[in-house]
Amino acid sequence: MRIAGKHYRSIWLDDATAALQIIDQTLLPHRFEIRAITDLASAAEAIRTMRVRGAPLIGATAAHGLALGLLEDPSDSGLDRAADTLLATRPTAINLKWAIDRVVRAVVPLETADRWAVARAEAIAICDEDAATCETIGVTGLVLLQELAAAKAADEPLQILTHCNAGWLATVDWGTALAPIYKAHDAGLPVHVWVDETRPRNQGASLTAFELREHGVPHTLIVDNAGGHLMQRGLVDVVLVGSDRTTAAGDVCNKIGTYLKALAAEANKVPFYVALPVSSIDWNIEDGLLEIPIEERDPAEVREMTGLSGDGKIERIALFSADSPVANPAFDVTPARYVTGLITERGLFDASRDDLAKLRRQVGLD
Amino acid sequence: MRIAGKHYRSIWLDDATAALQIIDQTLLPHRFEIRAITDLASAAEAIRTMRVRGAPLIGATAAHGLALGLLEDPSDSGLDRAADTLLATRPTAINLKWAIDRVVRAVVPLETADRWAVARAEAIAICDEDAATCETIGVTGLVLLQELAAAKAADEPLQILTHCNAGWLATVDWGTALAPIYKAHDAGLPVHVWVDETRPRNQGASLTAFELREHGVPHTLIVDNAGGHLMQRGLVDVVLVGSDRTTAAGDVCNKIGTYLKALAAEANKVPFYVALPVSSIDWNIEDGLLEIPIEERDPAEVREMTGLSGDGKIERIALFSADSPVANPAFDVTPARYVTGLITERGLFDASRDDLAKLRRQVGLD
Repeated sequence: MRIAGKHYRSIWLDDATAALQIIDQTLLPHRFEIRAITDLASAAEAIRTMRVRGAPLIGATAAHGLALGLLEDPSDSGLDRAADTLLATRPTAINLKWAIDRVVRAVVPLETADRWAVARAEAIAICDEDAATCETIGVTGLVLLQELAAAKAADEPLQILTHCNAGWLATVDWGTALAPIYKAHDAGLPVHVWVDETRPRNQGASLTAFELREHGVPHTLIVDNAGGHLMQRGLVDVVLVGSDRTTAAGDVCNKIGTYLKALAAEANKVPFYVALPVSSIDWNIEDGLLEIPIEERDPAEVREMTGLSGDGKIERIALFSADSPVANPAFDVTPARYVTGLITERGLFDASRDDLAKLRRQVGLD
Repeated sequence: MRIAGKHYRSIWLDDATAALQIIDQTLLPHRFEIRAITDLASAAEAIRTMRVRGAPLIGATAAHGLALGLLEDPSDSGLDRAADTLLATRPTAINLKWAIDRVVRAVVPLETADRWAVARAEAIAICDEDAATCETIGVTGLVLLQELAAAKAADEPLQILTHCNAGWLATVDWGTALAPIYKAHDAGLPVHVWVDETRPRNQGASLTAFELREHGVPHTLIVDNAGGHLMQRGLVDVVLVGSDRTTAAGDVCNKIGTYLKALAAEANKVPFYVALPVSSIDWNIEDGLLEIPIEERDPAEVREMTGLSGDGKIERIALFSADSPVANPAFDVTPARYVTGLITERGLFDASRDDLAKLRRQVGLD
């Protein structure tokens, strides 16, 4: 997608030097800095310190990191060491393990001299496939947004509310929930996006607003508390969010606060759609509330915040006393009955056991 | 209520010197500083810069400010000037005008020599009446909390969720939504309070958590996004909030985000109670959604935040780029059908036209 008019992916090889590049997302939205990833250690560091984040982008970075590790030491022990180093960076990210396993499988049978190049080709393929998947999610969602827009007066933009960042910065390109929005904007469909701040980590305000602004998509930032009020006043036509994990019955686990928006959508008859790659469906579970453990994160995420001080320095301040206990659940579960539909690269599906069973057969898992 | 074991009101006359004192709430929770209000100008400044906030406390401060103004100039023109100066501080606060009118009515017929002392007596009466009203709200709510607690296992605390600050710092003493909680705690009923951060101004994290901590009430701070998840998991027994304005049909206008908690309470069969003084009921309106205008506040409240820097200074930082537009509605309306009951100094009422009509007759307005 675009930053200041120029096309970027969230991870890429420099045209001239073939060096691996990322956008340092810890500095957004205050500073846009490209960072070179030159070796295994810097790839691992970028994942660990969240210079790159979002499950698909973490996987892509790890795949490239493994290739760089093989450039340093292509032996079996070098391969093991690189895989272990990368796996240890964010132990809970599912795509991380998936991407590393895929590259390892591709290079294990090979002579050491051939490993680096094959690993890099595999990493490039992972990136390209992710971008293609997300773009296809965008096409599926575009049709839906066009239908919703057709029900409105021609001069009124379609009003979309989103939570957190399910945009191209979380993937390699396009994003999941934001992909249909980019497709709609690029196709000339007038849209306006209400961007939830998304406390405690502010991914909406820091990343989604940045993405939309740089791509030229009209949007307005709101605190997480405001969405219900907007829906009550008829100012939201559709809610569009991503999903970290979706059950075989259509329950959706996404960033904390998503569930409250689903309740407000239901109460105000606003359609609530979830965009996701089929790979993020967990076919082994049905009941999200009972079967998905919710990660409890560091209280410092709630207590402290980063921003620009008066003299333009990036500074971290403590908002609240450390004397009050903090609970910081990172995700919540939106039961399938609140989900109007699931937007995937295989098309639009009901959030139901039956319709997802069809999808499962389609992708050959049954 | 208590701070570090000592009893305070939010505004008081010093025992030894009779000088007017407030707590500078702009410094909370980082610093607890008492500030003397010595004249009309410092009273007006304290209201304008939000050293004191909360409708009842603003009214109490204005009443005392008017008395101080009459000490400087007890003439009719001095009275007018003092009233105008105070009215201009926060033009929308309804209690401000009410308190000033009450003091003016009391002193207008008097000789100038008598005005100051009578105005001060009236200001003291306003403070005492507000504290008594809030304490009675606490007693009404205590009975309710005892009933809810009786349905739980004896060793489990009653789990209460609150939004924003409807505590003693917003009134003269006790508070509204927090009054029943203090009464319960003081009566030995085990309670635990989930405190919503309450973006954008963070009154929950900055003031409610401070109040509860200093009074020794067990509590946990959460982001506004977390409440639905907690209710879904059975971790909330009752939601208890305040109200800035309640209609004759029981619709409640309170801090933005209250409505989302009401929806989550309804979806999870958690009782949702609103505590308020009868004076905050607007008998002239019924439909809160149609008839209550929602204040749109400064985008800087969303974009910027104040906290402690590493070297212990109170600092303001910019969280987000000023290039993205911000919408900042300050309140939302919770329709009466989501409100389990209204806790007032006249007892517990249904949020319904019929039951509120009974209350109206009780207080002699009909």
